[in-house]
Amino acid sequence: MRFHGYFRSSSSYRCRIACNLKGVEYDFVSVHLTRDGGEQKGAGYKALNPQGLVPAFELDGGEVLTQSPAILEWLDETCPEPKLLPDDPVERAHVRAFCAVIACEIHPLQNLRVLQYLRGEYGQDQEGVEAWCQRWIGDGLAACEALLAKRPAQKFCFGDTPGMADVYLVPQVFSAARFKVDLGGMPNLRRIAEACNDLPAFAEAHPSQQPDAE
Amino acid sequence: MRFHGYFRSSSSYRCRIACNLKGVEYDFVSVHLTRDGGEQKGAGYKALNPQGLVPAFELDGGEVLTQSPAILEWLDETCPEPKLLPDDPVERAHVRAFCAVIACEIHPLQNLRVLQYLRGEYGQDQEGVEAWCQRWIGDGLAACEALLAKRPAQKFCFGDTPGMADVYLVPQVFSAARFKVDLGGMPNLRRIAEACNDLPAFAEAHPSQQPDAE
Repeated sequence: MRFHGYFRSSSSYRCRIACNLKGVEYDFVSVHLTRDGGEQKGAGYKALNPQGLVPAFELDGGEVLTQSPAILEWLDETCPEPKLLPDDPVERAHVRAFCAVIACEIHPLQNLRVLQYLRGEYGQDQEGVEAWCQRWIGDGLAACEALLAKRPAQKFCFGDTPGMADVYLVPQVFSAARFKVDLGGMPNLRRIAEACNDLPAFAEAHPSQQPDAE
Repeated sequence: MRFHGYFRSSSSYRCRIACNLKGVEYDFVSVHLTRDGGEQKGAGYKALNPQGLVPAFELDGGEVLTQSPAILEWLDETCPEPKLLPDDPVERAHVRAFCAVIACEIHPLQNLRVLQYLRGEYGQDQEGVEAWCQRWIGDGLAACEALLAKRPAQKFCFGDTPGMADVYLVPQVFSAARFKVDLGGMPNLRRIAEACNDLPAFAEAHPSQQPDAE
């Protein structure tokens, strides 16, 4: 399997963590999102993934999987150990809701092309871009914190072993730091992100540890 | 079960279609997103869903499910007929990727609170807001069209019966019309949306048919 990704992409980072947790091996292919106007927009990559986004998983049979939420569900269905989702349908829904807050409420708003639009069309400088990111990342992570605060505290988001929610949380906390989001009021998220980063599966997935890191 | 939603919310619309396809019954509770500054921000609703977003499914046992992607997976797991996702893991990944383009690339950018931010912070008027929506809805739906164009044409997105991709597509096509997005270059999406809207499960889920429609 070939994993087409980029060290700083949150959704690549999610997939790296999940592969590490499950012991899934792959050949990494770097797609540089900002060099030469973005390699993801080149004809070569777009033949693989017409949407021009990373990550893409190119399976040995030639099938190409895109969109990290779909890739992560596929990984959990085809490489079941350790399970990233619980068995109980209502618990699965709670975990997936936590993931969706990050995947559907936060991450799309801090995407490179959206920030480029804010700069180009609305004349926003770095400070303006950070204010935008702080608003959406801050609101979204506060919602995640509220979801966890309603439950008995556990070592990870939804249990004593890391799962799908942790896979989404850690890259988002990393992005929050990049955009100077204040996580002061989110003790559960900070504690859990720290516990995750103590594990090799998470530490080795960190952007700074990737072959294409700058 | 109580379905807390709003007639014009895309994610409520998705869940209505899925419930109709599966014959799931519920008591509808209207949460008006713009009246009195937004009922979803009131203490009553936030006690149910601290994130203050619709939809929320309040189960008979008292559990509250939020975030439409999580609710839709839960519906498909607990009310399996008719199935909204195919059995094959790679096909499931293709369907979920299509859904994620809508849920994670398009919909978050046209959310009410994001458009309010554009108006309030960047001084955008209706035309500016429409340009923003046209860019992201247009790009995202073009990606969806490209995904379908690679496959043999079928009556619905991924087969001869409607499934999860159609559940996401139809509300997004409805929003595209609201924001005057040109779907001229998307013949598959237009054809499939029309085929869906001919079915009672979709027609009865249309915003104009809801008790809280204006």
